Amino acid sequence: MSYLNKITSPTLLLDEKICRANLKNMADKAKRHGKKLVPHFKTAQSHQIGEWAKEYGITEVTASSIKMAEYLSGQGWENIHIAFPFNPLEIPRLNKLAATQSISVQLINPVTTQMLVDKLEHPVGFFIEIDAGYGRTGVEVSDFGLIEEILRTAKKSDKLWFKGFYIHAGHSYYIKDIPGLYEQTRNALNMLKFKYQSEYPNLVTRTGDTPGCSVMEDFGDIDELGPGNFVFYDLMQVVLGSCDREDIAVALAVPVVDIKKDRKEILVHGGGVHLAKDVLVDAHGTKNFGEVVILNENGWTIPKEKSFLKSISQEHGIIQASDELINSVKVGDVLGILPVHSCMTADCMGEYMTLDGQLVDHAEGK
Amino acid sequence: MSYLNKITSPTLLLDEKICRANLKNMADKAKRHGKKLVPHFKTAQSHQIGEWAKEYGITEVTASSIKMAEYLSGQGWENIHIAFPFNPLEIPRLNKLAATQSISVQLINPVTTQMLVDKLEHPVGFFIEIDAGYGRTGVEVSDFGLIEEILRTAKKSDKLWFKGFYIHAGHSYYIKDIPGLYEQTRNALNMLKFKYQSEYPNLVTRTGDTPGCSVMEDFGDIDELGPGNFVFYDLMQVVLGSCDREDIAVALAVPVVDIKKDRKEILVHGGGVHLAKDVLVDAHGTKNFGEVVILNENGWTIPKEKSFLKSISQEHGIIQASDELINSVKVGDVLGILPVHSCMTADCMGEYMTLDGQLVDHAEGK
Repeated sequence: MSYLNKITSPTLLLDEKICRANLKNMADKAKRHGKKLVPHFKTAQSHQIGEWAKEYGITEVTASSIKMAEYLSGQGWENIHIAFPFNPLEIPRLNKLAATQSISVQLINPVTTQMLVDKLEHPVGFFIEIDAGYGRTGVEVSDFGLIEEILRTAKKSDKLWFKGFYIHAGHSYYIKDIPGLYEQTRNALNMLKFKYQSEYPNLVTRTGDTPGCSVMEDFGDIDELGPGNFVFYDLMQVVLGSCDREDIAVALAVPVVDIKKDRKEILVHGGGVHLAKDVLVDAHGTKNFGEVVILNENGWTIPKEKSFLKSISQEHGIIQASDELINSVKVGDVLGILPVHSCMTADCMGEYMTLDGQLVDHAEGK
Repeated sequence: MSYLNKITSPTLLLDEKICRANLKNMADKAKRHGKKLVPHFKTAQSHQIGEWAKEYGITEVTASSIKMAEYLSGQGWENIHIAFPFNPLEIPRLNKLAATQSISVQLINPVTTQMLVDKLEHPVGFFIEIDAGYGRTGVEVSDFGLIEEILRTAKKSDKLWFKGFYIHAGHSYYIKDIPGLYEQTRNALNMLKFKYQSEYPNLVTRTGDTPGCSVMEDFGDIDELGPGNFVFYDLMQVVLGSCDREDIAVALAVPVVDIKKDRKEILVHGGGVHLAKDVLVDAHGTKNFGEVVILNENGWTIPKEKSFLKSISQEHGIIQASDELINSVKVGDVLGILPVHSCMTADCMGEYMTLDGQLVDHAEGK
């Protein structure tokens, strides 16, 4: 039975072949460069997709909250890293989790470090997150005073051990010069490694952002790569040059509920609660909340003429349709929408349907 | 035990007193004007809050999807209206639901109407949704040809019965002149009522949008009011003049994980997966994803000097803090965030915690 017959309401489709190809490509690239790939599972948030990842040699993953790490634990991962500045209120949960699962956390200040020193019951590794100019979070790369205060504090515990330095080069999402940016990241991490390696001979450096990991071929001495979005990709990554539309592994299936032929508009059941509200805005100010693909029994095809979601509200989406689409679509049809930001769409939807109609798990709750 | 001791990770707080006051105010206003209040439960999506609503004389509610209607059914509502252009793929689900719960749907084209005529197994009411210039969805107010085609088609069934006309004056969210807009809405609904009342003597007219229902005092001959957001309100409604900050009934509790005192920035665990990405942009282009309130054992207080979320990503939020806040906050504290769009935040979070630490339900899944 085709997955198509099962769809009556908004459903997040997952093309396993594309997803596996994305995993394989990134795993091959990491291997080619002698790097360890530790994917960020904030995108997939899935046991099933974790099993696929293991087939490409992936042994560790990253989560963005302790709740997500709890969800991913118990699946045989050699380590789960929580790539979010650790929240000291969650030490009791961390103690429980770390009793059965190898965990590492991210530290950026001595206050939280000291609380871990005081209360940690099981060994936990930590990365120091470095802010290489992005400004969202992390210790400034030249703030050796702060780095050393964190390291000194951590040394007071026999359970808290230093893994290395982590940079999320998140500015690759809005700075065009990814090679230039990677040079900064490489230089920052190399400098830190060189400076602290004698004291911590096993320290590693990790960077992870999908645009960088997708387009770069020179990672220098960085040890580990931690991209997340590449598992599915999305329209934002197409715009950034990380992938082609054909590499996007998820599409939101949306039922057509009305057609305004004169305005070339199609009203679908698919809005902010399904896709999230991430949007691409072009040079003319036109908003794009997702692009139409044509569903068929084997998956979807990308039409030559673009049709896109020009506006969304909580449950509604309005598609600006191409001539071809407006002339062929009917009320009761189901269209596919390539999302602007697949991590957010997957988080909204909370599960996937594969092209053979099987449901694939996604972590629930916040 | 205070709710505060229970919070270790992002949690959506609900102040029952404020929520009940909002319900009471709107119910009193509807009664004062002789209108029937049928709240849109896309905001609350909750059995518990439904029980509170009943205490203020509310007997019917509206949902925005069949899934939400299924969730709200079986709770003694005299009718649940699904205020979304009906999706014909969901007729089997509608048949199942309408077997035990009085349901009405929204129709805007004869295609879907005919499918219902062919397949409906139980009585279902319908509103025709009118587009009074908003342009999102609905039959144009002067398109009598289309209105009558829908009515003629529906008459072929003894199960599909016409309730009346529905306008969602959604442009009240971006047009300043709400009284002018209401005059249009009133005129449109009155004209339609006058035109079709002889044939359908029981037809009613309904409009529902929180800004209009909050600020207007003249609803003319409109029979029913259907606002949703007023149950919680939010910062967008404050900007629109629908309410004060003190009327906002929900706040996202977010743990403080880092402080950059020199930049007056506070990093919290609270991002797009918790709040959604709705944003207010002021005249200077400054973005505001939510405003800080100070939590205490009894709820929260609104500080005089504003601190606000200036940027969010999937899990991170960065607060631009006031002098007072930056000088008092500590890592491990929990702050409250008044959301920009409470419907979306509640949908992201999937449950509430009251100020006595009890969990309140919210529909799950899409």
